[in-house]
Amino acid sequence: MPTKAVIISIGDEILYGQTLDTNAHWISGELNKAGIQVEKRYTIGDRREEILSTLKEAEERAKIILITGGLGPTSDDLTKPCLLEYFDTYLVRNESVLNHIIELFTTRGREVTEVNKAQADIPANGKAVPNILGTAPGVWIEENGKVFVSMPGVPYEMQQMMTDTVIPQLREKYVKGELLHRMIRTIGIPESALANMIREWETNLPKAIKLAYLPTKGSVKLRLTAKREDEDHFQTQKLIQEEINKVLPTIEKYVYGFDDEEIEEAIGRMLLESKMSLSTAESCTGGYLSHKITSVPGSSQWYEGGFIPYSNKFKNEQLRVPLEMLEEHGAVSKPVVLVLAENVRKAFNTSIGVSISGIAGPTGGTEEKPVGTVWIGYSDQRKTVAKKFLFTKDRLINIHYTAMAALDMIRINLTKD
Amino acid sequence: MPTKAVIISIGDEILYGQTLDTNAHWISGELNKAGIQVEKRYTIGDRREEILSTLKEAEERAKIILITGGLGPTSDDLTKPCLLEYFDTYLVRNESVLNHIIELFTTRGREVTEVNKAQADIPANGKAVPNILGTAPGVWIEENGKVFVSMPGVPYEMQQMMTDTVIPQLREKYVKGELLHRMIRTIGIPESALANMIREWETNLPKAIKLAYLPTKGSVKLRLTAKREDEDHFQTQKLIQEEINKVLPTIEKYVYGFDDEEIEEAIGRMLLESKMSLSTAESCTGGYLSHKITSVPGSSQWYEGGFIPYSNKFKNEQLRVPLEMLEEHGAVSKPVVLVLAENVRKAFNTSIGVSISGIAGPTGGTEEKPVGTVWIGYSDQRKTVAKKFLFTKDRLINIHYTAMAALDMIRINLTKD
Repeated sequence: MPTKAVIISIGDEILYGQTLDTNAHWISGELNKAGIQVEKRYTIGDRREEILSTLKEAEERAKIILITGGLGPTSDDLTKPCLLEYFDTYLVRNESVLNHIIELFTTRGREVTEVNKAQADIPANGKAVPNILGTAPGVWIEENGKVFVSMPGVPYEMQQMMTDTVIPQLREKYVKGELLHRMIRTIGIPESALANMIREWETNLPKAIKLAYLPTKGSVKLRLTAKREDEDHFQTQKLIQEEINKVLPTIEKYVYGFDDEEIEEAIGRMLLESKMSLSTAESCTGGYLSHKITSVPGSSQWYEGGFIPYSNKFKNEQLRVPLEMLEEHGAVSKPVVLVLAENVRKAFNTSIGVSISGIAGPTGGTEEKPVGTVWIGYSDQRKTVAKKFLFTKDRLINIHYTAMAALDMIRINLTKD
Repeated sequence: MPTKAVIISIGDEILYGQTLDTNAHWISGELNKAGIQVEKRYTIGDRREEILSTLKEAEERAKIILITGGLGPTSDDLTKPCLLEYFDTYLVRNESVLNHIIELFTTRGREVTEVNKAQADIPANGKAVPNILGTAPGVWIEENGKVFVSMPGVPYEMQQMMTDTVIPQLREKYVKGELLHRMIRTIGIPESALANMIREWETNLPKAIKLAYLPTKGSVKLRLTAKREDEDHFQTQKLIQEEINKVLPTIEKYVYGFDDEEIEEAIGRMLLESKMSLSTAESCTGGYLSHKITSVPGSSQWYEGGFIPYSNKFKNEQLRVPLEMLEEHGAVSKPVVLVLAENVRKAFNTSIGVSISGIAGPTGGTEEKPVGTVWIGYSDQRKTVAKKFLFTKDRLINIHYTAMAALDMIRINLTKD
């Protein structure tokens, strides 16, 4: 069993929804990597009773209690007074911390007030955790076989303290065994259909491996987790890989990558490997597809550029879609996306051209072509094809789904080649 | 005393630090706006005992318990089974939810499996909260004078359910007196500078009005909140409006709109009012600016379209930037964005043309032009101008800040006219 930790985030601004708590998220990831299991997270306000009762709850639940926030110099910062009350102890001024604070203020040309000096006061039963980047030190307290660490809420100060001091000391003290994760990333199949498809494999998974479905808009990730005990790192990796190999043939056509790779990164990798290039002509997505593609560092190596022919005039003048075609079939039609895909490919002289035309909504739908109707075109040297989709009534979701479907269409055609 | 709520986020992927919990943050903000006080937030994993004990803790602490996550159709989704156990009840299939699921699948041309149908099963002591955008309905349970609401973890599904059903019903039930909010939206000024600028006004605000600074990337919103008791609606509105009128002259040049209006909506409104049109040529933002512009419904009324001239070849061939200019000054330069802005305006025959060229990073920087260097060009019938920016080392943040700065540049020039 890995050692358990809980995280307590303190701050009214978090509970009011004004500050997004990225600290607890960051700490969770770091503890997980270090092989410490986060059991529960609490977010509470700057209130004495709440802090005290949550310390009690936390202590009953885990060996390690990490606290962020409420360590500033002002009267609404209650973490230190509460620690004193909780452990029935008193403050002792820490000389080394005091010197650090005085140095920090004098190099910035500011006067050191009594309030600033008081930040060097540490509970008598604990020790200071150095805060190189700020004035409020962390506090490390060991009592009844538990470790309490209190850190400032300023993200970069907390991260430096965690990385340099807290994580190394926790690892040394508590970590036997480590959690290993692998991720299989799929696209173009809903969670429930995927679950049906792999039910037998899932049922027969070794007990040491835990499976999780992580759905996001247009994509479902399968996460396999196993715990490594002692020096068995390689064995555990092998165990997970064997299970991945078993399930892959069943779902291969939906798998675009593994672990951290997003679909737009996978497309980039595939294009780069096959020395191919891409251009886009997108109407209803208005640049979102090219934004996804160019969010990947280095994308200028495979992406030449794109048109956003929002008006029919532009579709005709810049991409030579015949006016009669636009009139006869409408802009959201198979013939139009076929011409767009082929002509954008030729205009940029790229291996692949992709085109999009649809009705994002909320207005503009007809009975024949309701909101959410989208045509996507794909053209390479050998063929030009198109596919029709029907998404939702919501404009932003349609834009997102369409871009994902276009990326998937590129992937499928690249895989076929 | 406002009614108290707790929020429970369920999901191993959150505790593992793989998914940032934006749900609890979003819900906190919405409850706060509605006049309900968030007392505590819990984040827990997909484990039966933990879910059950946290439900107990939560019930002891607040009147309203909001739960997200763990509602999917697969075996690792434990929220519904735990609710059954907690309330000692059983499932009843909800016909209206079942019809919604069947409709959703058939319009998408997919088969409805038994697993999908089971999502229409609702605890017998509760009622379904419609999920227009997905298959898993929410569950609303009232027991012992408390309200438990369980919602899916998919952010846009949860948000739709909260906005359309949960918040209105909670308000009706629990909020006496109504909170009135007004928002002043600023761009182009950091929070601390804004706070300095309006300090005197803030100090003299009437006690009935609460001020909050809500900073997001590239924009700071000022929220003024007052509680209306009984029929005093008009008086309270007037009180807030008077304070807005007092502060506006001081910060006017940074204010782009009020309440829910995003900067891209404000631009759309201004262009529509002045019967002007817009086109874009964006290199380093790769379509993100046009995506922001076209995320606004009806944007085809003022946006003609754009180019994404990612390669120099395209800048030259399609937008006639002289090759010598590209060679002499580089693509990220004042002369190049001036030509791009003017030529995109002429190509689309629009009132305004906007151009962007920059180094988004992480690579491609030089000593003279480090990562984060961006030139933005603006052209209308009367003038063509350009401005240089230096943002961060982070690719995605640079893309975001650049689009915001381009929108701000359009706003400033539209305001001048």
